[in-house]
Amino acid sequence: MLTLYYSPGACSLAPHVALEEARATYELRRVSLPDGENRSPAYQAVNPKGSVPALATPHGVLTENVAVLQYIAARHPEARLAPVNDIHAAAGLTSFNGYLGSSVHPVLGKLLFGRPPLEGEAREAQQDLALTRLRVIEQHLFVGPWALGPHYSTADPYLAVFSRWARQADLLDAAAFPRLNAHLDEVQARPATARALAAEGLAPV
Amino acid sequence: MLTLYYSPGACSLAPHVALEEARATYELRRVSLPDGENRSPAYQAVNPKGSVPALATPHGVLTENVAVLQYIAARHPEARLAPVNDIHAAAGLTSFNGYLGSSVHPVLGKLLFGRPPLEGEAREAQQDLALTRLRVIEQHLFVGPWALGPHYSTADPYLAVFSRWARQADLLDAAAFPRLNAHLDEVQARPATARALAAEGLAPV
Repeated sequence: MLTLYYSPGACSLAPHVALEEARATYELRRVSLPDGENRSPAYQAVNPKGSVPALATPHGVLTENVAVLQYIAARHPEARLAPVNDIHAAAGLTSFNGYLGSSVHPVLGKLLFGRPPLEGEAREAQQDLALTRLRVIEQHLFVGPWALGPHYSTADPYLAVFSRWARQADLLDAAAFPRLNAHLDEVQARPATARALAAEGLAPV
Repeated sequence: MLTLYYSPGACSLAPHVALEEARATYELRRVSLPDGENRSPAYQAVNPKGSVPALATPHGVLTENVAVLQYIAARHPEARLAPVNDIHAAAGLTSFNGYLGSSVHPVLGKLLFGRPPLEGEAREAQQDLALTRLRVIEQHLFVGPWALGPHYSTADPYLAVFSRWARQADLLDAAAFPRLNAHLDEVQARPATARALAAEGLAPV
């Protein structure tokens, strides 16, 4: 059995959707970041980083989306959420997800959820950096129709997390980001995404 | 043939060491970050993110250390730089490297190399955050004697990049970080590390 620790709408939405895509058997445990539940001793014992997602598996707890998504895909090969028998394509998926984790999440996260909130020039600089990072995806990394090409993969729900955040912050301009906008709509239209959103008490944006 | 694009002492040192550990055949191309060579049109054509490392392979260019290291390990299984046939252990390595990329590199990098340099309270806050992230490794993630336990893996040279930075910035206090200090010494004592450092014009710290 797997247990996914999540906070509604946080980046844990990506493995939540992936588990639904794989029709996996799992339990959900809510750890609200806005309410600080991730700083409780009980959750620190699960994940001393205090971040979500954490995925409890029969072999131990996994953290970091790039790893949690890799594990879900490997555990459910029939769902074809990652390339198989192709070390370059597998590394390409890790690279896409790694960029989201290293370069998009920290920048967009600080802009949207940083406390105290950024203001003035600092806020503008952070917004410019977020847009630069999103443009790298729009113009270079995104293949289409799915993130990595003709096959849906774990990169798709993970990318959609940040497209959602960007759209909610009015950063996902239709003219500047036509591919990311169309992609987000496609991901949100999938039944697995709808099930995960509903379970987190959310709606498409 | 592989070509590694690196900047001396940057996080590209990790795949450089891994290639040496694997006795791989590869070429080195220097792209100095302090000199801004990563912003040249020639390098932007290789890697539009403008970051190092980039690894040119027969199947295309790979970026993001978590992916570059995964590929080097998979291409050279005889070097045993990653777990094989164990999806949880493989995800554990990805998680360790993912944390370095998502949570240690951005924080330590901004502290050491941010322009304009952080000052005053902002510098102190960044330093506190860097120490918090390093403590998570010292106290929770690091298994010993190598990062993930009895077997050397790609996590070791990648961790050593940031231990080097932290030691150079006088952040790697001996009493607070006994395991990271001992680990850095062990990594720097390996012949493969010595070869990579020498090729980058660097010495152990």
